[in-house]
Amino acid sequence: MNVTELAQRAKNASFVLATLPTEVKDTALRSVAQALRAHADEILQANALDLQAANAEVGAGRMKPSLYERLKLSSEKLETTVRGMEELLSLPDPVGLILEETELDEGLVLQKISCPIGVLGIIFEARPDVIPQICALAIKSGNAALLKGGKEALHTNTVLMETILNALGTLPGYPQGTFALLTSREESAQMLKEDAFVDLIIPRGGSALLAYVKANTRIPVLGHADGVCHMYISAMADATMACALAIDAKTQYPAACNALETLLINENWPVENQQKLLQTLTQHDVTLYGDERVAALTPVAGPVENWHTEYGEKKLSVKLVSNVREAISHINTYGSHHTDAIVTQDSQEAELFLNLVDSAGVYHNASTRFADGYRYGFGAEVGISTGKTHARGPVGLNGLTIYKYKLRGKGQKVADYVGPQAKPFTHKKRGGSK
Amino acid sequence: MNVTELAQRAKNASFVLATLPTEVKDTALRSVAQALRAHADEILQANALDLQAANAEVGAGRMKPSLYERLKLSSEKLETTVRGMEELLSLPDPVGLILEETELDEGLVLQKISCPIGVLGIIFEARPDVIPQICALAIKSGNAALLKGGKEALHTNTVLMETILNALGTLPGYPQGTFALLTSREESAQMLKEDAFVDLIIPRGGSALLAYVKANTRIPVLGHADGVCHMYISAMADATMACALAIDAKTQYPAACNALETLLINENWPVENQQKLLQTLTQHDVTLYGDERVAALTPVAGPVENWHTEYGEKKLSVKLVSNVREAISHINTYGSHHTDAIVTQDSQEAELFLNLVDSAGVYHNASTRFADGYRYGFGAEVGISTGKTHARGPVGLNGLTIYKYKLRGKGQKVADYVGPQAKPFTHKKRGGSK
Repeated sequence: MNVTELAQRAKNASFVLATLPTEVKDTALRSVAQALRAHADEILQANALDLQAANAEVGAGRMKPSLYERLKLSSEKLETTVRGMEELLSLPDPVGLILEETELDEGLVLQKISCPIGVLGIIFEARPDVIPQICALAIKSGNAALLKGGKEALHTNTVLMETILNALGTLPGYPQGTFALLTSREESAQMLKEDAFVDLIIPRGGSALLAYVKANTRIPVLGHADGVCHMYISAMADATMACALAIDAKTQYPAACNALETLLINENWPVENQQKLLQTLTQHDVTLYGDERVAALTPVAGPVENWHTEYGEKKLSVKLVSNVREAISHINTYGSHHTDAIVTQDSQEAELFLNLVDSAGVYHNASTRFADGYRYGFGAEVGISTGKTHARGPVGLNGLTIYKYKLRGKGQKVADYVGPQAKPFTHKKRGGSK
Repeated sequence: MNVTELAQRAKNASFVLATLPTEVKDTALRSVAQALRAHADEILQANALDLQAANAEVGAGRMKPSLYERLKLSSEKLETTVRGMEELLSLPDPVGLILEETELDEGLVLQKISCPIGVLGIIFEARPDVIPQICALAIKSGNAALLKGGKEALHTNTVLMETILNALGTLPGYPQGTFALLTSREESAQMLKEDAFVDLIIPRGGSALLAYVKANTRIPVLGHADGVCHMYISAMADATMACALAIDAKTQYPAACNALETLLINENWPVENQQKLLQTLTQHDVTLYGDERVAALTPVAGPVENWHTEYGEKKLSVKLVSNVREAISHINTYGSHHTDAIVTQDSQEAELFLNLVDSAGVYHNASTRFADGYRYGFGAEVGISTGKTHARGPVGLNGLTIYKYKLRGKGQKVADYVGPQAKPFTHKKRGGSK
């Protein structure tokens, strides 16, 4: 089947998925989880084939060792993924909620009801555990999905998808064609053109992938390009807390998109605190970049070349600023609108920061690393969005839903509600169930 | 100032707008409304100039009379628009609502807070009353906006925008650069490239404009291409109601996007009802299109050339279908996902239709013409969306907001919540204010 046919089939499936009762979706989740456990050996054998090929690529210098690591599945990693799927069982069904209910007039009632988006197009690189994760979120939220994986994970992805499709295939009432795996670049490019059938594209990869996707589709795109997260140390910051938070945000997992990339320090914070903070970072193997004023406090590797830089490793841009407004302005100018934090004991200054910084996450006295669907209590996340429409920040099941308006009447005509003799609307709000 | 500078200025204004108290926004709305009333003569004089030029264009056959009508302002139309602005005063502020609140752990509280989107880019044709409407919605929701109007309304648009800018300019605390008028195609094209500053594009025009915009921007787009609305008359439909609803949906305002374009009739509905319905439509000057089976009931002008057709005038496609599933399938295949209605006395059949039809509005025993922000009780609408992300159906103030996550802690590090000694999250939900 070509991509258009797969997309059309997924769209047809999506109409049925939108009406599935919670029990059917939960049964599907359980069946897929069981099947993945039952076929773990097969999956890991396929992964071994991919790893073998990847190993040769790494040896030849054509693949980064970090990519190899992300490609690698183990029985522990697979079990963790399967447990994550099972955790979705305990979350409430995001579909069918009455978000608003308004009586427009007697016997004419409008309901705003949550429903699935329809067909998702996911493009991901390397990590094969994306397949069970996304399929689980899609099953729970009643969406269909086309998944395009990287060629380096082809064997693993193929077995994972077969396992999932076989498990779903045995369930009465679960529509055929809900999921399909795409494998080539040509298929990926074609999927971006299927705006008649695909409702949302979610690229999970670097900023180059996001830019490519945005430039080549009319379908809405959910994702984030960069994670240039900031921490501002106020003149009113507690020194011990500032050190602990900067170390956590920068070093706990430097490759994460919510890791710290730029440290802004108020120049009026005691110099001994400034020195202690920077030295602590250096002791934790963080390479610092900054101007002469920073260099006067502690040795730096050089000036900051570009304040937009996302290092993704133990490197950090450092700047002295004169006040919270300068910090806010720097963040809004050079940041990526992902997650930014202020460290201060002054709650008024903190509120100013939280209100004026235009980012998905704005934190007071907490590490930027908390920006994550699991930590936020969403159960799982489909990704993190730095866009300002639809969904922002870590995106869980709710980000995979939209709503429709159901209007139930008794034959009401608009003609009766317009003109000089117009009947008035009552517009009585009734609290929805959510 | 060029478009990039205007967009950057609007972005800077947006940070301040996001923090304005409700009173300041309401004062701004009141001032703008007063100014528009005070300058009504000037505005109508400018409109007369545009109408004079347009009249020549219509005479030369270069402009449709319907465009001339939409261009025309009268003191009544202006007053209606100003009253619409004032009605926004009574609506709750959509910004700053606590949508969700979760305690992640003791002393670590996450809030999901509604906030403005930022900078809107509006592209509209002919109708100059779009300017005060959009500015009012933007003021109330705390957004900045660049507005690109059609050249046929240049004089009117210029005076309207000057009046609004002068009124806002006198208000302390209201940021400069919140609104700007763009006038040329080049400026419009440039605006579509300003994805660093513009957060959402709203084209208000035909499907050609939407297609052009989607093909030329990476910025999210909110809008609808077509309004191919359906009404399905079930075998269980009340004949009197079916006639009244079809007449209302098709003839009450045929140019509207929520007007009826395709009528689907169950073949098992009594033949005398079928004939009565079609003859009533004919009596209301509706030209019918359909196959031989339809032609056997009443004279038709010919077969339906394209089931995707949006006539926008008193023409109607008619089809006999064998059951509700065939109707649903037809609507999901040929419709525009705008608004579709079923007429039936069978509530089970109705629920099936409401659940399976994949449209922004799904109606039971009501005219499709109710799909409108004012009728839904939103106070006003920025447009109608047939997309399936962000906002769907008539879009009011809520569609101009997004949210940010505020996390307030006491120095919590992520390192304490991972690994074998991980502290558990409490994830206690506290009901938000909304």
